[in-house]
Amino acid sequence: MTARQSGRRCWTVSTLHCVGPEGTMSVLKLEECRERIRKELDNTVDFWLKYSHDPLHGGFFTCIGRDGKVYDELKYVWLQGRQVWMYCRLYRTVDRFRKPEILEAAKAGGAFLRKFARVSCGSSGKWKCAFCLTRDGKAVKIQRTIFSECFYIMAMDELSRVIGDEDMQLEAEQMMEQLICWVRVDSSGLGRPQLPGDVPANSMAVPMMLLCLVQQLTEGRGPEVIQKYRELASWCVQKILQHIQREGTAILENVSVEGAELPGCQGRLLNPGHALEAGWFLLQFSVEQKDEELQRTAINKFMELPYQYGWDKEHGGLFYFLDVDGHCPTQLEWSMKLWWPHCEALIAFLMAYSQTKKPELLERFSKVYEYTFSHFPDVQRGEWFGYLTQGGKVALDFKGGPFKGFFHVPRCLYMCERILDDMLANKD
Amino acid sequence: MTARQSGRRCWTVSTLHCVGPEGTMSVLKLEECRERIRKELDNTVDFWLKYSHDPLHGGFFTCIGRDGKVYDELKYVWLQGRQVWMYCRLYRTVDRFRKPEILEAAKAGGAFLRKFARVSCGSSGKWKCAFCLTRDGKAVKIQRTIFSECFYIMAMDELSRVIGDEDMQLEAEQMMEQLICWVRVDSSGLGRPQLPGDVPANSMAVPMMLLCLVQQLTEGRGPEVIQKYRELASWCVQKILQHIQREGTAILENVSVEGAELPGCQGRLLNPGHALEAGWFLLQFSVEQKDEELQRTAINKFMELPYQYGWDKEHGGLFYFLDVDGHCPTQLEWSMKLWWPHCEALIAFLMAYSQTKKPELLERFSKVYEYTFSHFPDVQRGEWFGYLTQGGKVALDFKGGPFKGFFHVPRCLYMCERILDDMLANKD
Repeated sequence: MTARQSGRRCWTVSTLHCVGPEGTMSVLKLEECRERIRKELDNTVDFWLKYSHDPLHGGFFTCIGRDGKVYDELKYVWLQGRQVWMYCRLYRTVDRFRKPEILEAAKAGGAFLRKFARVSCGSSGKWKCAFCLTRDGKAVKIQRTIFSECFYIMAMDELSRVIGDEDMQLEAEQMMEQLICWVRVDSSGLGRPQLPGDVPANSMAVPMMLLCLVQQLTEGRGPEVIQKYRELASWCVQKILQHIQREGTAILENVSVEGAELPGCQGRLLNPGHALEAGWFLLQFSVEQKDEELQRTAINKFMELPYQYGWDKEHGGLFYFLDVDGHCPTQLEWSMKLWWPHCEALIAFLMAYSQTKKPELLERFSKVYEYTFSHFPDVQRGEWFGYLTQGGKVALDFKGGPFKGFFHVPRCLYMCERILDDMLANKD
Repeated sequence: MTARQSGRRCWTVSTLHCVGPEGTMSVLKLEECRERIRKELDNTVDFWLKYSHDPLHGGFFTCIGRDGKVYDELKYVWLQGRQVWMYCRLYRTVDRFRKPEILEAAKAGGAFLRKFARVSCGSSGKWKCAFCLTRDGKAVKIQRTIFSECFYIMAMDELSRVIGDEDMQLEAEQMMEQLICWVRVDSSGLGRPQLPGDVPANSMAVPMMLLCLVQQLTEGRGPEVIQKYRELASWCVQKILQHIQREGTAILENVSVEGAELPGCQGRLLNPGHALEAGWFLLQFSVEQKDEELQRTAINKFMELPYQYGWDKEHGGLFYFLDVDGHCPTQLEWSMKLWWPHCEALIAFLMAYSQTKKPELLERFSKVYEYTFSHFPDVQRGEWFGYLTQGGKVALDFKGGPFKGFFHVPRCLYMCERILDDMLANKD
């Protein structure tokens, strides 16, 4: 009997029944699943505590080889901010991570960011956060996007909660005002030349990140702060929903600012991992807002659709990029299996299941879980590989790189552990 | 008896003996090889004549799917310039390509470039060539490098030779002056912010491209023009030779402006295809200059070393990127097999063999030839695939994309055909 035949009654919160690729049934106990996730989280935290700290200049090394050795001393600012955020979140909300060494590392990372990340641009008083710094904090590169600033804000807000620093929280909110201005009023400060053929677009990453920041800045805060960001949150949701295209059959990564499909490769691009991440951001927001329609949209559009088009039926795993019309994407890495879309999918489907108890969502979680845990963790030396070939072999064997730091793996494990804790605590 | 055992006498110009991967001997007749190359070139020219022209706005579509269908209308400026250059070179130097449709296409491409590629930057009178244009010529993106300008110059110089337009030639030389200024005097016009951690580097691509342009601008011209670029040519050669590092055992892609190794991934990067391309640029130059030491360096360092470290002993083919210390490169596509390094390797080894008649160079050519012609050409629909997995399967199936146009394939086939013509004509 397959899980599907067994009907919904069979899907208890303590057991995952799912149909494997060959039609065989596998049974995963949620307790075992939580145990595995908890161990992976402990192991991941240990890895980064052990190998990534720079005692000389503060901040974190992010280019870390398979065995923990630093292979490049550059410090990527996205990853500095994310690591500070993750350490603080673990310290603040998980008893077993309330350890002085985690707090000290987060503070040292925060100090490094505050001292070096912001770079003044010319004599106008304008500034940007760098994308990349030397080991001792000299700016190497500035991106003409908002993301370094986004992770700076996440870091400062979370760190301010842990150490009770109101100035730091104010700094986060002030930088948020600048971000909002760049995105909604005047983007010239980002430094991109205005070109006649460069039509402004609504790229999924921007409203997603802003919604994430609104949730960060308002969490547990009073009605005044919530009120302050209410309109922005609605704007973000509306901008994310514009990505539902092709009569509701696809989530496109880039649309026009009016919400229409764009021409060419840019317009046809699918990024399943991003859509799934947006899905759980929307789902969290829908619960806070008690918005059932948004909840349904988050699940049916931003989770089910990317799973349907993004899952590789031949080799398993989620593709990195696809083209909605089936053309070959121009990104050389389009068919690779990256760790982070799988992290986002795990959070998305487990959160969706925990809210709805719909068995098909647990089935999705189980399928992604099986693939993820049998392919990404490095069982010999700890932490996860980040980049696999389409066939699932390790293509790049480092643990940290310019875009892989202490973030997606621990955030996924942390979120899943908490959701499972709640589900298992409420199983009656 | 293997080719190596047979000794040099066995290596006649009409026969390629080489040892296959399993030690078996294969024999390739150079005449057959030339025949195959000639057919591939005809086929490639036909493909682009048929599918890439835009009768409405001029210029060339460059995003062309496996079957010839345009999947994106953006016009990449590197590829516009390269296609004009290649058409003109074929028209000017190969009798069977002296066809009106090739000349007309080149002229239309040149007109499109002159009308749209140059974009003014602000009110200062400064300009840059765009990287990418809409179908009707509106600038979409500007890179902060010199390469759009390089291919613009190549196009204009070659087109001016075909149509005898002195103004056009003057325009090419004037843009060359601007390039030299950006590279050697003041790079601020490129638009990159000066950042304290962004140490200026000598990237192989820059002196390579400038040397290529010197050869283009001086070919067949009088002593005055040759004199004008003499010092620049020496500078380029010296800058390219700075990339010989690690006591002569590796060609590193990026070094300091003083010619020292740079720290981190950037400093350890190997790009075998680039090194091989620089190799045949140097080899051509060494023959013009009758510089035997430079000839030896070009072959022993810029051809033999990248072949030794870049050839994949397990699956065959040349890696795209490697790390000289064996770390995993951070480029996601590092292990892929791209068409263009194989094109460069074919030209390099055949040219080197034609000059030296050393059998081991013909062996190298033969090995690259076998891999290339058994993996890249699309025998069903013409032209070549550009991007294979490490194992040699087609990973991206389009014929043209943002970086693949009418250039590396036809230039390689054209150069090899000419070298073989010379060798076979002089076989006595």
